[in-house]
Amino acid sequence: MKAQTMMKEENHTRNGVNVDELFNTIDAVKNSPVIARFKFRANNQWIDGGHNRTTIKDFYGIQKDHKHEATFKLDADEPPLLLGTGKGPNPVEYLLTALAACVTTSLVFHAAAKGIVLKSVESRLEGDIDLRGFLGISKDVRKGYQEIRMFFKIDADVPQQQLEELVQLGPTFSPVFDSITRGVPVRVSLDK
Amino acid sequence: MKAQTMMKEENHTRNGVNVDELFNTIDAVKNSPVIARFKFRANNQWIDGGHNRTTIKDFYGIQKDHKHEATFKLDADEPPLLLGTGKGPNPVEYLLTALAACVTTSLVFHAAAKGIVLKSVESRLEGDIDLRGFLGISKDVRKGYQEIRMFFKIDADVPQQQLEELVQLGPTFSPVFDSITRGVPVRVSLDK
Repeated sequence: MKAQTMMKEENHTRNGVNVDELFNTIDAVKNSPVIARFKFRANNQWIDGGHNRTTIKDFYGIQKDHKHEATFKLDADEPPLLLGTGKGPNPVEYLLTALAACVTTSLVFHAAAKGIVLKSVESRLEGDIDLRGFLGISKDVRKGYQEIRMFFKIDADVPQQQLEELVQLGPTFSPVFDSITRGVPVRVSLDK
Repeated sequence: MKAQTMMKEENHTRNGVNVDELFNTIDAVKNSPVIARFKFRANNQWIDGGHNRTTIKDFYGIQKDHKHEATFKLDADEPPLLLGTGKGPNPVEYLLTALAACVTTSLVFHAAAKGIVLKSVESRLEGDIDLRGFLGISKDVRKGYQEIRMFFKIDADVPQQQLEELVQLGPTFSPVFDSITRGVPVRVSLDK
């Protein structure tokens, strides 16, 4: 892995990110901002009880549709304690997954752009939910997360005192962090 | 499936949800609100470039820790167009997955509580992101989703004109819908 990473360095790849392509992308978007408008998509099918399946197969960007290399299928379910059958993570755990993945990728990409070599990045997340909201028992209790905490362990070629700055690249640039902390308008309607 | 559903009805199960247990849970929480305080958890490990893996294995609720039946591993990656290697859905697609799954489960559980029998529930979601935010090109462009749209197709034992009301049970009770639309404080720090 180390040898592979060093070889990649010669091809202008840092942290597994092709930095030449990254800077080319930034230049292309500066010249033609319309190519930066992406649409991400998902389809969901209810199976039974708390069990449902989301399919991810295509997205729109650079002014056309693209198929993913593979169609991804993601099963969600509640654990038996929450009246499900445990066939997958539950939806609020998928939200933590989205956040963990996005803050990590944002940190990795922006560290690569800044010339910082990462050796390892790990994180753990915990979020608080009071189920009185979902159950409709109290209107004073919110249905969603009250707070989410994310803790990083990072090994990188920077002085210890710069690690704090490095960690903040994640939340500074992450689309999911921005979506969750600042809120997104979501329209839910019947398909006509 | 139909026969199975009818058999379950006799066991006070509706839409795959044990309605007796659901009402027992609501009564238990009313008597002892502390048991409704849950903590959901995730661990993430960076692999290379845009590829990282989230592990979901336990959660806290009813005043103790619980292990899931299985440990769930979820790979995230960017497609090659976004400088990844396509080994999984990307983080913003995981966010749509969380939303799809949660709005669906919330609709199914609350329909069950109201005595509404569902035959099928499908949804498709689309969200808009302008990558100038993530790339740090424009401070006026937000990094996260600008809007998310969710469209349902539902077959249920209700008059057509009540379908609109039924659909709104999802966003009304969903923890992920509430988290995404209203925002959640997220603290990101180094693990000490």
